[in-house]
Amino acid sequence: MTIAQRQRFYALVENDLAELERRLRDVGRGAHPTFAAAAAHLFGSPGKLLRPTLVFLAARFGPGARSGVIVDLAESLELVHTASLVHDDIVDSADLRRNVPTVNAVWNDDVALIVGDYLFAKAYALAAVLPKPEVIAMVAHTVFALCDGELTEVASVPAMPSEAQYLERIELKTASLYAACCQGAALLADAEPEHVAALGAYGTSVGLSFQITDDVLDLIGGSESLGKEVGRDLAEGMPTLPMIYAVEADADGAALASRILALDKGPEELRDLIATIRSSGGIERARARAQAFHDEAIAALDRLPDRPEREALREIADFILRRQR
Amino acid sequence: MTIAQRQRFYALVENDLAELERRLRDVGRGAHPTFAAAAAHLFGSPGKLLRPTLVFLAARFGPGARSGVIVDLAESLELVHTASLVHDDIVDSADLRRNVPTVNAVWNDDVALIVGDYLFAKAYALAAVLPKPEVIAMVAHTVFALCDGELTEVASVPAMPSEAQYLERIELKTASLYAACCQGAALLADAEPEHVAALGAYGTSVGLSFQITDDVLDLIGGSESLGKEVGRDLAEGMPTLPMIYAVEADADGAALASRILALDKGPEELRDLIATIRSSGGIERARARAQAFHDEAIAALDRLPDRPEREALREIADFILRRQR
Repeated sequence: MTIAQRQRFYALVENDLAELERRLRDVGRGAHPTFAAAAAHLFGSPGKLLRPTLVFLAARFGPGARSGVIVDLAESLELVHTASLVHDDIVDSADLRRNVPTVNAVWNDDVALIVGDYLFAKAYALAAVLPKPEVIAMVAHTVFALCDGELTEVASVPAMPSEAQYLERIELKTASLYAACCQGAALLADAEPEHVAALGAYGTSVGLSFQITDDVLDLIGGSESLGKEVGRDLAEGMPTLPMIYAVEADADGAALASRILALDKGPEELRDLIATIRSSGGIERARARAQAFHDEAIAALDRLPDRPEREALREIADFILRRQR
Repeated sequence: MTIAQRQRFYALVENDLAELERRLRDVGRGAHPTFAAAAAHLFGSPGKLLRPTLVFLAARFGPGARSGVIVDLAESLELVHTASLVHDDIVDSADLRRNVPTVNAVWNDDVALIVGDYLFAKAYALAAVLPKPEVIAMVAHTVFALCDGELTEVASVPAMPSEAQYLERIELKTASLYAACCQGAALLADAEPEHVAALGAYGTSVGLSFQITDDVLDLIGGSESLGKEVGRDLAEGMPTLPMIYAVEADADGAALASRILALDKGPEELRDLIATIRSSGGIERARARAQAFHDEAIAALDRLPDRPEREALREIADFILRRQR
């Protein structure tokens, strides 16, 4: 895990992460060979593992953290996350994610559909044995939120959302999972109710900051920086916060909005739109919004006891905002 | 529920079924409008509700059946079943199921994908609060079985399976859910271990008998009889037991097998193949196999106490074998 070696915040939970990685490599064991191969493909090169790191750090704020149970939660939520990505990649007809071919690209849509179902089932099987019903309910509600966010994307008439609508969507699709990681772990570890609430608030804010930063990174830099091509949201006609701000700033916002929402853009139109958005100030304004959520996350940490784990959570919030990919 | 009025075996569990139907009509309440609409579409005209009926009858063999918990299990397994159908219909590009347009046909594949995820999540949320961990695990394992069966269909090279391979596939895709209904309900109701086992065996056998009968019905009669067109499995190149037997009986079995497995059959070839299979004796042999599983199901019932519920289970086994659709 090369990133882990570079970031200090992993150090406190190294053993937990190693156990999680071992378990993820084992997800396909004993299952149908196609699922086993897909699981090996998905978990062969683990990503940044930010969400499990949040689970392990948040659990340290309670007295009752039994390690096995916390790893169960971390694995369950990572499987929920992975399952939803596998299904999203079908909907988006995506060939690559983090420069790795998607399951639908390596196999096909049908296989990816069932692999996602499998991963969700594994996630729920793990969640079901957690000792607190409210945490089990939280895992299910996280999936409902992911589905709500995804349905909002696929079922609505293409339109430029307001800032509030955009924030609602990314809260459902991204931040709900970050919040569940932090809050669920604290609950499982019998943390004080006010610490559970603070960690939940931190998770939501850090998740919003993460997604806005992701959407900014999609519009800047070369194709190397985010492990995916620049302008992919734009190519898909998926409006993000920098685009919303660019439309607001444009003298003929309605025309710019239609161009952003259009599908089948040519490479020239794509380059031109990226340049327009970059010069609109929308990217700087979106960065400021991400910074504001970052600051809210840090403020939530003030309600937690001063410990090395709190410092690590602060570093994660900084990392999420400052990362180049 | 017109069928319920016609079949005696529903009478004992009428109140439970009414409560389940009320709950199913409520599945979409408070959710995303597109999900709510899809749920109303799916549960607006309930089917035969054989699986929930099995749940309610099997629960009567234990002393501890709390009605609410049993309805939770019935609803959970019905949602698992419905979710898997919604996803199967994407894989099969099916437009109709029981003469009702599929979710992918009314909306599109993307919506159907997420609606299925939603239903699975609802199913697990219900299962997670069941008071017995082994029943929760059973629900998850039923989903693994469904996924295994579906992966076997989509991930293998098209080939004529052996009878044993066919039976393994339908055990995963159909019988596992019937077994979970019977066994899970008996477990929840604190039935004697030997009665739990007998009900599980009954469920498996009756599920196998159900699927073979379904596959036979797909090859006989007019388009009115099964609520779907005749020869649909054949049109999709999906080999079933009567086809396997027809190939075994044919002088040039390899040639017949290739014709059965071929996709994009014309209407004339389809008619000709149906006639060939009908005249091969394969349908009668498959019916005899379904009858044998029916008889195994009845034999399993001998290990249960003599009660009206046992007679109802016998009637269900008969109904499954004799139905015309």
